Amino acid sequence: MPKHQRDISNKTKNIVGSPIRKITRLLEEAGEKESIISFGGGAPSLAPPQESMNHLIEKLRKEPQRSVCYNSTPGLLKTREAVTEMLKEEEKIDIDPKEEITLTAGGTQGLYAALQTLINPGQEVMISDPAYVGYPEAIKLAGGKVNRIKTTWQEDFQITPEKINNNITKKTEALILLSPDNPTGRMLTEKNLKGIIEVVEDQDLWLITDDIYKDIVFEDQEFINTRKIGAYENTVTCSSFSKTASVPGMRIGYTYGPKEVIKNMTQLLQYEALCIGRIPQIFLQHFLSEKGKHKRNYIQKEVLPVYKHRKNIMKKVLKEKLPKAGYSEPKGAFYYFLDVSRYLENYKDEEQFSHELYKEAEVVVIPGGYFGEEGKNHVRLTFVSEPEDRIKEGINRISEFLVS
Amino acid sequence: MPKHQRDISNKTKNIVGSPIRKITRLLEEAGEKESIISFGGGAPSLAPPQESMNHLIEKLRKEPQRSVCYNSTPGLLKTREAVTEMLKEEEKIDIDPKEEITLTAGGTQGLYAALQTLINPGQEVMISDPAYVGYPEAIKLAGGKVNRIKTTWQEDFQITPEKINNNITKKTEALILLSPDNPTGRMLTEKNLKGIIEVVEDQDLWLITDDIYKDIVFEDQEFINTRKIGAYENTVTCSSFSKTASVPGMRIGYTYGPKEVIKNMTQLLQYEALCIGRIPQIFLQHFLSEKGKHKRNYIQKEVLPVYKHRKNIMKKVLKEKLPKAGYSEPKGAFYYFLDVSRYLENYKDEEQFSHELYKEAEVVVIPGGYFGEEGKNHVRLTFVSEPEDRIKEGINRISEFLVS
Repeated sequence: MPKHQRDISNKTKNIVGSPIRKITRLLEEAGEKESIISFGGGAPSLAPPQESMNHLIEKLRKEPQRSVCYNSTPGLLKTREAVTEMLKEEEKIDIDPKEEITLTAGGTQGLYAALQTLINPGQEVMISDPAYVGYPEAIKLAGGKVNRIKTTWQEDFQITPEKINNNITKKTEALILLSPDNPTGRMLTEKNLKGIIEVVEDQDLWLITDDIYKDIVFEDQEFINTRKIGAYENTVTCSSFSKTASVPGMRIGYTYGPKEVIKNMTQLLQYEALCIGRIPQIFLQHFLSEKGKHKRNYIQKEVLPVYKHRKNIMKKVLKEKLPKAGYSEPKGAFYYFLDVSRYLENYKDEEQFSHELYKEAEVVVIPGGYFGEEGKNHVRLTFVSEPEDRIKEGINRISEFLVS
Repeated sequence: MPKHQRDISNKTKNIVGSPIRKITRLLEEAGEKESIISFGGGAPSLAPPQESMNHLIEKLRKEPQRSVCYNSTPGLLKTREAVTEMLKEEEKIDIDPKEEITLTAGGTQGLYAALQTLINPGQEVMISDPAYVGYPEAIKLAGGKVNRIKTTWQEDFQITPEKINNNITKKTEALILLSPDNPTGRMLTEKNLKGIIEVVEDQDLWLITDDIYKDIVFEDQEFINTRKIGAYENTVTCSSFSKTASVPGMRIGYTYGPKEVIKNMTQLLQYEALCIGRIPQIFLQHFLSEKGKHKRNYIQKEVLPVYKHRKNIMKKVLKEKLPKAGYSEPKGAFYYFLDVSRYLENYKDEEQFSHELYKEAEVVVIPGGYFGEEGKNHVRLTFVSEPEDRIKEGINRISEFLVS
């Protein structure tokens, strides 16, 4: 018998570590230095809803054992029902809590499991360019290939039915839509959404909608569930409460879609994760109770006013201090995606600029190239992670760094 | 262009849902009826350590925001350090907290990610027969094939170096060892462990040790970390605090091994899960503090005396009520794995027997065939899930059911 050659699998060999996660880890290991102003991560900086936290604390005190025992893979039926009632109330759609939904440990786990469930090796998944950094590697881990649809700030980062039709190949199996979008803050127009649904229906593709920013919308915008305007049955929706309830470290999200997809996903999740935590479910059961009263109060009174204010502050300071940066006003989510090409003459690219900026001025921004080719010469700035005075101070530092 | 054929991927099509998880889900949806006596799940029925829960509650009250924010994919460095210090203290091994360990959402996620990282399609992974139900499907999800090593209660379910040598093929890439074992309660002898390490080293295989029951050992047994007796460097160890701290629904575990493996696993986990919860880490930091004093107290004073007592009670009642059942005394873990062939004359198999038993007598036992061919004609009974009186009552009901 020839000598066996032990090795690491090819699955993870070709995967690229998320540069944003690397920054998270560096900042964490640097001990969260006060002087560093971070426009980096996509994390809310607000306290979670106090009443729901109090409810959780009370349950942990009174029923410690019941709070930490196993539960079924799709999550407690009571929690699934709370989520489907929320969907009925807010988005006017009927999802069967027993068969059409599974809870997940955040949106990431839902998207990973959905792609594993839907994509065979060699098939293509369409995403925008720029797009959330998690998509390409999650697609590759399912054996899939990435098909990019170019968008620009001059066109408000819109994905149009025409662009999809032009990019489609016979290997295309799915399209991922993220609206409101990371990194651009773009929301797709109802007209474009309708047209896109017609194309995916005509081409018989899976439509994956990532709704994690659905509650973070500004001004007169309204979040649109694609089921309401197109009723395309082969739609799988991943979402999470990380942004909505400011609890990214609790790890709670959900995925809903056709029964067969959810059944297969749940079987995968059994062996991938067994089940999600009980503690986030206890929190969630309160947060979604009374027909979503607590949730609405929190979003309307605590979250949106602060984020809107910070968005406006950042806009004002950007206009003043970085007038040559190009961007499309964010309609939702957390980010300004700035075209900084007119500031990069002294740098190799936006990555080198970001690196120097961090070293010299202790301001963290994310190089746009991480999000795709079209993101080059851009940087992403989160406007929710720092309070007003530090937003001003951070943009000031960038401006001073550029003239120094 | 020919019409596209949308479909679910083959990855999840061939996966079989865990029958034990199905039972969990049924029991959950049945509303936890008091009259049902469950020897089914592998879940501890003790309250979690009170002081560590109090610490968690205090932190949630004082620092709600810091308790629910993101953390890096391998977990907070402070938590990783707490785990590696525990390993140094208890198992006398040195693991680098920065590069050789990652936290995982329970043992399941660690095993899944390890197999994805180590196994290429078509390669074989050796496991025992009977074996934990999660292994075969996790191996298949990595594209691997299952290679079974037969064990019997008459041989104390030992895996020997000879058996491994006889089963090995040129496609064998890894061996999973679980000791103490589920479903049998068997612990591998030091002699067999030493011999097995020699074989895997000689054949250049990955050795995966699943240490989730390492703290649940009885009588004069001592848990052995394979690194101490063989120092085989290509060993990856998955473990969890689900059993140790009676917190299966918190989802906290860890995997350690060679740097390259942990690096690749962490990259996979970024896109599979992003990060694990902060809340279980806060709990764990207390549980492992003061050089493990709280943990040792909890295990020695609260867990083992109760489990040992329940094990002995079940043994006594089994002897009395089911004298024709064959078994090897469990050395660790939670289970009696009973050869009930002499009670099955009126049944098609042990699965039908278990099903009728549940319907007629409301006692849950797990059919042994779920764990492999060699498990047929056996049933698994958890002795930690019910208190003394209900253990007696449950075995009584089985005995009466058999004569009725």
